[in-house]
Amino acid sequence: MNCPTTLPSIAEALCRLETGELRARDLAQACLQRIQARDAEVQAYVAYDANRVLAQAGEVDSGRRRGLLRGVPFAVKDVIQSADYPTTYGSPIYAGHRTGRDAACVALSREQGGVLMGKVVTSEFATQTPGPTRNPLNPAHTPGGSSSGSAAAVADGMAMVAWGTQTTGSITRPAIYCGVVGYKPSFGLVSTAGVGLLSPLQDTVGILARDVGDAAATVLGIHGRRFQPAPADSRYRLGVCLSSQWDHASAQAVNALHAWIRRLAAAGFEVSERALPADFEALIVDQGRLVAYDARHALAHERRTDAGRLSPRLTERMAGGEAIDLPAYLAMQQRAALGRHRADALFEGVDALVYPATDGEAEAGLENSGSPRFGALWTLLHLPTVALPVARGSGGLPLGVQLVGRYGQDEALLQIAERAASSGGGVDG
Amino acid sequence: MNCPTTLPSIAEALCRLETGELRARDLAQACLQRIQARDAEVQAYVAYDANRVLAQAGEVDSGRRRGLLRGVPFAVKDVIQSADYPTTYGSPIYAGHRTGRDAACVALSREQGGVLMGKVVTSEFATQTPGPTRNPLNPAHTPGGSSSGSAAAVADGMAMVAWGTQTTGSITRPAIYCGVVGYKPSFGLVSTAGVGLLSPLQDTVGILARDVGDAAATVLGIHGRRFQPAPADSRYRLGVCLSSQWDHASAQAVNALHAWIRRLAAAGFEVSERALPADFEALIVDQGRLVAYDARHALAHERRTDAGRLSPRLTERMAGGEAIDLPAYLAMQQRAALGRHRADALFEGVDALVYPATDGEAEAGLENSGSPRFGALWTLLHLPTVALPVARGSGGLPLGVQLVGRYGQDEALLQIAERAASSGGGVDG
Repeated sequence: MNCPTTLPSIAEALCRLETGELRARDLAQACLQRIQARDAEVQAYVAYDANRVLAQAGEVDSGRRRGLLRGVPFAVKDVIQSADYPTTYGSPIYAGHRTGRDAACVALSREQGGVLMGKVVTSEFATQTPGPTRNPLNPAHTPGGSSSGSAAAVADGMAMVAWGTQTTGSITRPAIYCGVVGYKPSFGLVSTAGVGLLSPLQDTVGILARDVGDAAATVLGIHGRRFQPAPADSRYRLGVCLSSQWDHASAQAVNALHAWIRRLAAAGFEVSERALPADFEALIVDQGRLVAYDARHALAHERRTDAGRLSPRLTERMAGGEAIDLPAYLAMQQRAALGRHRADALFEGVDALVYPATDGEAEAGLENSGSPRFGALWTLLHLPTVALPVARGSGGLPLGVQLVGRYGQDEALLQIAERAASSGGGVDG
Repeated sequence: MNCPTTLPSIAEALCRLETGELRARDLAQACLQRIQARDAEVQAYVAYDANRVLAQAGEVDSGRRRGLLRGVPFAVKDVIQSADYPTTYGSPIYAGHRTGRDAACVALSREQGGVLMGKVVTSEFATQTPGPTRNPLNPAHTPGGSSSGSAAAVADGMAMVAWGTQTTGSITRPAIYCGVVGYKPSFGLVSTAGVGLLSPLQDTVGILARDVGDAAATVLGIHGRRFQPAPADSRYRLGVCLSSQWDHASAQAVNALHAWIRRLAAAGFEVSERALPADFEALIVDQGRLVAYDARHALAHERRTDAGRLSPRLTERMAGGEAIDLPAYLAMQQRAALGRHRADALFEGVDALVYPATDGEAEAGLENSGSPRFGALWTLLHLPTVALPVARGSGGLPLGVQLVGRYGQDEALLQIAERAASSGGGVDG
């Protein structure tokens, strides 16, 4: 009864909508049915309204709304504003809070014909205190965070794609835990207008999707651009980037990464290894301190007026920021800026870097959303990343890797990621 | 009758509040009286509430609110959210719109004991279509924009300081036109959480103040830090930065800059000249194109749902962004990132750069707010700037200069600016 209706890819859906063999209403209904069947357990959605969903789909089917995302049912993380639903930031302080505006990514998705399904769960202000969402692959396990609802909704067929945000590892981690693709674009590629900010020099809007093509179609689509897959004869060079962070990954996760790399090498990818230089290692420590400092500022209003309704975990995190003085903060921002410039050198001789995505499988329990650590450096450096599930662990949940590209070279990275995903196999490959 | 009560500097006010010879209520009353006497003409304020103002001042006087900005009456540009006033973004679309949250800079100012006076006029979404504010020095002339109300309120004694924002030249220009100091901090130094964004990689929160000390006290104050003036024996090296943009400045503005530089040289500053390298000249063109592209995204919701209430000027500006494709956009962002790194080289052998601040005096009429061009490059490059009025033009309105510092070296720049302001003389010096 609960089997998901197989949703087509965005490219296929657009084609079939064009020929008339598919209606936007069918896509919307498939997602709505999935919500009705499954969301009592998964709890991905904060709010959805079937009538609004079907009304939008009807506008697509009648030809009144067109565009590169026409008919695509998309969900929106609840730190991102939408005009017709509340935006709660995952906090009881903002239960029922309405801003009356669509964030840029929401309005642009609608402009391209997308069908807004509703708002999906975020952890508290996109930090580490989880919401109620369960991992759809195993509801006793965390879906990761902070874009927990975005990952779960897409993994479970309740939306074709979902907007999320990442300040440390908030797209990468839930993507892998739930077995979907997480694309964090170059910093600034998706406007943060209308997004609840935490650390404005790191907060990045991105997408969770079932495959690289859908992720690319959505993010490029809001820019009025179609994704062009790589030419058939492309040969790519990957650099496995070794760092001290690898010590935190489970043997299973590391083995899965190497097994995947071997499959890619067999498929014609050129693979090399390189150590992360020490100054970049230091930036990983800075990243967490910058977020703590910035969060104290971003949430100053809530600290002043409603501290009792902030979680102890978030309160403690912000207290860590209090010990940092302004010169230390500015020195970290300067090092981060220098790191962003020097990041180009990490790509000498390679087209993309390969890096772990998570410590391992999603853990049992909903109290902790897992460690964001493997996203920290790339978020700080503003580099685009694509997280791909590549295997299953002994617990039956996905393990993954991420590919990292040069700043602003998102289209090239997406081409590589699509090719790697098809060559390396997915969780069931 | 309309003579302003002389407000003390923030440093003096804090000292006199401490000894009890001044009450926060007196400061608040002085600003309120000024609003009542003058704002029907100046129209700096969108909203203020005398009872709320006096209640906050009372909390300071009773010792319940303390901090580095205790008792300081501050105003807030109306693209910056505050919990107890509407946030209209200078657009009829958002008349009466309430967000229920303080932006980071507002909450942090309150946390340090500041007294929120109210919301002051912004041009439409911080772009170039002006609001009703007049130049308090000559009400037939523009106050500049987009932080028009912020500059006018401070210039006319209706607030001690006012938060503003700059995406191109929206702090620098109104500061000079109204004869006050405009400090645009290093990008990211003041959190943009709670600010209506236009071009998120350029939007910078800053302050308008009567002097450098007040500007520094406010921005450092929200970081829990006091401003330390330069040691008495400091000697500074200034580099006058020549570019093609100088051709747009009036002879009067250029002469005023050189006369000021001569006074500084006579006072012991070391002065040299340097030409802006050609690749930086190219970035100035990119800056305007990036804003046009980003504005189309940031205001996508309003374009979709309420296009008729956007001004023709803003609509046209956004249409200019439509002609730019994603690869061109990303190439500009990459060049900007490279420019930020290379900007350090502009400072070889000097402690700060000197650059024009405006084309000349504020023009007659309220339809145009003047050109933001002299802010464009420094905003794009994320560098801190301090705009200082230094002379009066033949029309009787101020002419000014700006000092530009290295990224993250805000405290050093503020020290130089304070020293330069006292050595070079102000508009009446």
